[in-house]
Amino acid sequence: MPAISKKGLAMPQSPIRKLVPFAEGAKARGIKIHQLNIGQPDIKTPQVALDAVKNNDLEVLAYSHSAGFQSYRDKLASYYSNHGIDVSPEDIIISTGGSEALLFAMGSVTDPGDEIIIPEPFYANYNGFATASGVKVVPVISTLEEGFALPPISDFEKLISDKTKAIVICNPGNPTGYLYSEDEIRQLAELVKKHDLFLIADEVYREFAYDGHKHHSVMKQRDIDDHAIMIDSVSKRFSMCGARIGCIVSRNKELMSTAMKFAQARLSPPTFAQIASEAALDTPQSYFDDVIEEYVSRRNTLVAGLEAIPGVKVAKPKGAFYCIAELPVKNADAFAQWLLESFDLDGKTIMVAPAAGFYSSDNVGLNQVRIAYVLEENHLKEAVTILKAALEQYQD
Amino acid sequence: MPAISKKGLAMPQSPIRKLVPFAEGAKARGIKIHQLNIGQPDIKTPQVALDAVKNNDLEVLAYSHSAGFQSYRDKLASYYSNHGIDVSPEDIIISTGGSEALLFAMGSVTDPGDEIIIPEPFYANYNGFATASGVKVVPVISTLEEGFALPPISDFEKLISDKTKAIVICNPGNPTGYLYSEDEIRQLAELVKKHDLFLIADEVYREFAYDGHKHHSVMKQRDIDDHAIMIDSVSKRFSMCGARIGCIVSRNKELMSTAMKFAQARLSPPTFAQIASEAALDTPQSYFDDVIEEYVSRRNTLVAGLEAIPGVKVAKPKGAFYCIAELPVKNADAFAQWLLESFDLDGKTIMVAPAAGFYSSDNVGLNQVRIAYVLEENHLKEAVTILKAALEQYQD
Ligand SMILES: Cc1ncc(COP(=O)(O)O)c(C=O)c1O
Ligand SMILES: Cc1ncc(COP(=O)(O)O)c(C=O)c1O
Repeated sequence: MPAISKKGLAMPQSPIRKLVPFAEGAKARGIKIHQLNIGQPDIKTPQVALDAVKNNDLEVLAYSHSAGFQSYRDKLASYYSNHGIDVSPEDIIISTGGSEALLFAMGSVTDPGDEIIIPEPFYANYNGFATASGVKVVPVISTLEEGFALPPISDFEKLISDKTKAIVICNPGNPTGYLYSEDEIRQLAELVKKHDLFLIADEVYREFAYDGHKHHSVMKQRDIDDHAIMIDSVSKRFSMCGARIGCIVSRNKELMSTAMKFAQARLSPPTFAQIASEAALDTPQSYFDDVIEEYVSRRNTLVAGLEAIPGVKVAKPKGAFYCIAELPVKNADAFAQWLLESFDLDGKTIMVAPAAGFYSSDNVGLNQVRIAYVLEENHLKEAVTILKAALEQYQD
Repeated sequence: MPAISKKGLAMPQSPIRKLVPFAEGAKARGIKIHQLNIGQPDIKTPQVALDAVKNNDLEVLAYSHSAGFQSYRDKLASYYSNHGIDVSPEDIIISTGGSEALLFAMGSVTDPGDEIIIPEPFYANYNGFATASGVKVVPVISTLEEGFALPPISDFEKLISDKTKAIVICNPGNPTGYLYSEDEIRQLAELVKKHDLFLIADEVYREFAYDGHKHHSVMKQRDIDDHAIMIDSVSKRFSMCGARIGCIVSRNKELMSTAMKFAQARLSPPTFAQIASEAALDTPQSYFDDVIEEYVSRRNTLVAGLEAIPGVKVAKPKGAFYCIAELPVKNADAFAQWLLESFDLDGKTIMVAPAAGFYSSDNVGLNQVRIAYVLEENHLKEAVTILKAALEQYQD
């Protein structure tokens, strides 16, 4: 048998992959599962986006420009300007999801053997993209006690070496829900200037900032035009995960012309999805206001419910739609499996994502889970009730 | 300024990239350009595929399964069975274009520093995917004189080393239009068995086989189930390049579970495009019959026209919709530029792809161009007339 590549063998599995057979088993036993484990919003996609696709009159579904429709990039540049991010269409390459934008960014700034520093816990697929690129993730631990705030800059500096090429942040954070302050972004800017690194900011949850907190994009930090790379996506903003449209944005021309070579090799981003994404930019502000209101009230319900369970700790999220909860268990992985395999409350249970998969350090976050509040409020309430009952019954 | 990666700097440009400004210049001077340089068919997308998207009733455009819709994989497995390729849905992962399937295949079987052997001239983006993966392409030259037939197996064996992980073929070939015979596929099968290599066959032009020649898929070669990886795409088959749907197909379970980890990291292939692609499988046979008839008659027109030009040599393609033509010029690159910059016949000129970009060896194919016959016949005729007049006038 021919051999699988070392990196293929090293590619991480999704943190919830192991749980899937147990979830299927529970369903087969007729148990209803509240899925708190995924980042797939239940919010409706804006009608204007869906309609644009229904009303398209293409006869030949052709490749688009490798950087995406010019019309879309123009409109997107205006959209960013309206959000205080002054970029031109040439600073934008449309990608197949934020996922591909991350791959383009890593490919453009790292070679096999290089390192990137990421505050953990972080979006688990950064590990996958890094492994695919032969790059080592060097984690800096942020803690629930500190609400997952930016770790001290000295913690980063200790880890910077010749091999370090970039710092990656997710703002607001998946899985933490943490929103970096303007001051924290400034500290990072000083750091990347001092050490001549790229700062890759995954801002796919940018619009989801709560309680009057403002989002500070790395693109607003004009002293690091050559360092800042923004990753964006329509997936969460417009509840259009299946479109597979994102973008990479930077004012560094050399970086963009490099990313463009990766973009040309794969020919183009999807056409129907670009039609939808371009139209989605006409979504009225009221849509976002409603969505934010909905998430804030879900978050409040969830956090209040979790805090009322003895032994559960949670850092109140300021953005996105995830939170990390520490549970009074030794091993959240085993607990999550037990919830699906051996527990139900009146025929119902919950599925959560064990948080260990969001840490790159070993033996960290073992008693934590990530909960996504992408369910209606009454389901979230029920989920909290189930969690409470489960924790009362569970024996480590 | 932070540094761009070595591999980013090494990423090749598209072979026609350099010509684009000259094409724009020609257009600005009011000159009409017949584009023979691209693989974008002008054929209409099947109505059934377009209608499926128009009639979709999605309210939330959600992520699909990372391997693609189950319903699509089921139907695709039946489609392959009907074409003599006996695979199950588990042997198929839906990808974002054949491009992504190639990336998944390379990532699953190669590590940085490894080598893959490819008969040249080959699809230029293999270079891009190899560079992105840190992998070295080792070319085996096939020649116009031999009609771009498979080079002797001994030529491959000379190049196989510990670092060789796979042989990549394109069948039918872009840019050659060559269709491998069953015997050639058998020879390759013996080779990969003997040296324990993967055989990655890019069969995205499978349906485009002419003159009664039959296409022999590597998947029909049942003695290499563990070695064979097929790359496929809806782009050309259904003239749906903008969909961005392809797949990777193999009966090697370890390979597929590795490819699946790459697929999970990027979440899912595009949803609208999967709807279109699934529906496209209902395209009536008459559509293909018409398309094949059209391409055969275009090819005949083109090849007859080229052969009638003094000093031009061409290997008559048996499949796909490209051919390589040798021109009586020293440097086809300079000639292609001159066609756009300094020549016109009654206000019209042509754009061709210099073939050097399809060779990985240096100084090979310098007097060759790739011509795609994706234009209507009367335009092709005119293009040949223009080429003839240009060659008469051109001074090397
Ligand atoms: C932090 C973060 N970045 C990037 C992505 C990738 O999303 P997409 O490829 O759908 O844009 C996700 C998806 O969940 C995410 O949570
Ligand atoms: C030989 C070959 N393979 C793969 C591709 C990639 O096509 P896609 O990603 O659109 O499926 C192409 C496109 O031209 C091609 O010619």
